[in-house]
Amino acid sequence: MSELLREELQQKINSKTKPLGALGRLEELAIQIGLALKTSEPKIKRPSLIVFAADHGIAKEGVSAYPQEVTYQMVLNFLKGGAAINVFCQQNQWDLEIVDAGVIGQFEPQKHLIDAKIAHGTKSFLKEPAMTNSDCEKALDFGRILAQNKVREGSNMLAFGEMGIGNTSSASVLMHLMTDIPLDQCVGRGTGLDEQGRLIKLQTLQKALDLYDQNMKTKEALATYGGFEIAMICGAFMGAAESGALFLVDGFIASSAYLMALQLDPQISQYAIFSHQSNEQGHKKLLDYLQVKPLLDLDLRLGEGTGCALALPIVHSAVNFLNQMASFESAGVSNKED
Amino acid sequence: MSELLREELQQKINSKTKPLGALGRLEELAIQIGLALKTSEPKIKRPSLIVFAADHGIAKEGVSAYPQEVTYQMVLNFLKGGAAINVFCQQNQWDLEIVDAGVIGQFEPQKHLIDAKIAHGTKSFLKEPAMTNSDCEKALDFGRILAQNKVREGSNMLAFGEMGIGNTSSASVLMHLMTDIPLDQCVGRGTGLDEQGRLIKLQTLQKALDLYDQNMKTKEALATYGGFEIAMICGAFMGAAESGALFLVDGFIASSAYLMALQLDPQISQYAIFSHQSNEQGHKKLLDYLQVKPLLDLDLRLGEGTGCALALPIVHSAVNFLNQMASFESAGVSNKED
Repeated sequence: MSELLREELQQKINSKTKPLGALGRLEELAIQIGLALKTSEPKIKRPSLIVFAADHGIAKEGVSAYPQEVTYQMVLNFLKGGAAINVFCQQNQWDLEIVDAGVIGQFEPQKHLIDAKIAHGTKSFLKEPAMTNSDCEKALDFGRILAQNKVREGSNMLAFGEMGIGNTSSASVLMHLMTDIPLDQCVGRGTGLDEQGRLIKLQTLQKALDLYDQNMKTKEALATYGGFEIAMICGAFMGAAESGALFLVDGFIASSAYLMALQLDPQISQYAIFSHQSNEQGHKKLLDYLQVKPLLDLDLRLGEGTGCALALPIVHSAVNFLNQMASFESAGVSNKED
Repeated sequence: MSELLREELQQKINSKTKPLGALGRLEELAIQIGLALKTSEPKIKRPSLIVFAADHGIAKEGVSAYPQEVTYQMVLNFLKGGAAINVFCQQNQWDLEIVDAGVIGQFEPQKHLIDAKIAHGTKSFLKEPAMTNSDCEKALDFGRILAQNKVREGSNMLAFGEMGIGNTSSASVLMHLMTDIPLDQCVGRGTGLDEQGRLIKLQTLQKALDLYDQNMKTKEALATYGGFEIAMICGAFMGAAESGALFLVDGFIASSAYLMALQLDPQISQYAIFSHQSNEQGHKKLLDYLQVKPLLDLDLRLGEGTGCALALPIVHSAVNFLNQMASFESAGVSNKED
């Protein structure tokens, strides 16, 4: 069945008025999208971008260049429309929703803000597990159901961004535990540490790793070292895939959430479109480990879903050429000489 | 003056609510655009994409996978809206104009077609120079004036695509002559030759090189081995830069036209935005030679300006973040801890 559809998509692409294969990565993307949406005439419907924000106990252990209150302040900035992701979403005429997954502080109820606060930040995993297993399940479920609801409302292309001072620390440890790549290669400069700051972050995270059994399972690792936003994105990836929708993967944090989701449900990979390779040092290694090549490589290291928003026009282009280009036959163009 | 503006742009970028440098290549691009347009609040106005089409005498010497009449047929396809560049321009709500720079055959006068036919194709440079010096000057002038007129009409962002069966042969020889990179590394598979076909193309082009003095100057090389569309794009790059407008550089052929233009006017580089790295083997080497890194790397090898059209949303994003993002101060977000 899917082999037949793959062949149909490939033939359709080959009939277009261009040399065979001349649209490169767009052709692979068009095939992936057609297969995921189970049609040779895929349409991107109501693309939806959700930013999950949460605070991290580990942020107080000197692992970040920015103070913890920036998470709260940036959520206000998202809600007022002043952040990079707002600008890029507006450019795409794309609605943006913010989920309070566990930010320290309270927000007034308002449009575009979804209150799903599990706690006022996680605990510092230098002292105790970041969250309980039950809170971790809660976060996974919330993300999954939110994604499923989005699909039910008509979206078939979801994207998830994150904001949370300290969350590269969680992502680094999770990456190390799941891939066995040495911790030093998983730990980068985050929002802007210098090399000395990075080494302190590395030592802190190594100390935290030594506190717990290193052979823990996926969900236990997620509860011990994760963040509420990471767990929700992990759940959202699974929810999107279970509902048959495509999803865009953003940078290092989102990719760490993907790594966890992939352990829990290997089927999700066919729905994943990797948007960009970030400048955060662990990201390239994580993408290599996953054997994926993202669409963009623009040295971004901002998160918020900015890579997804920048890649979305390319995803549209892949679908548009598949649906709208003329064939050699319809345009009366001579094909390749054999 | 431009150092002051550079500093103003950098400070403006650094004040935005994101970690320093977190928008990577977009930040460099925003600075380039601001400097080129001489303002810290640049706006992209009426981006304009023009595809130059022409035939090549060398196409009859067995150097291309497609028959020569495809140039004419593809121009009809552009005019009917069925080609990849039509689809991508439509996605960007971008007008597309086609210049008949020297296609074999006649077209009915029609909207979006500009008749600038210099001849019905160039001569085969395996036998005689592709065009006369006077026709080469004519093509350069036409491209230059067209670009200047576009800027006069209100555009400050131009992009130029090309169509011409056989034109990778011209581009390869011009690249070799101007860069001294061995011909073998400049000759690729074009629209889809196999390795045997590529070797025949290489031999043919080596034979052609042996016919003429190899120390010719830029314009003489352009007349001897070039194409009408390549010469027009070369002129158009210079015209855009002279008028203070930015221009997007597409793939291998457009980059070879840029290489020629750069010899004639080194000032143009500040206005050039390289859109993508093509899959055509010479292109990466040419970009390395030029010491530029394009925005996209999607294994495209289609020409038509498709790389420019796919990169345009990223250019818009660079300008949009510069103009629309909130500053730390205006958003009340705490800056980095020192």
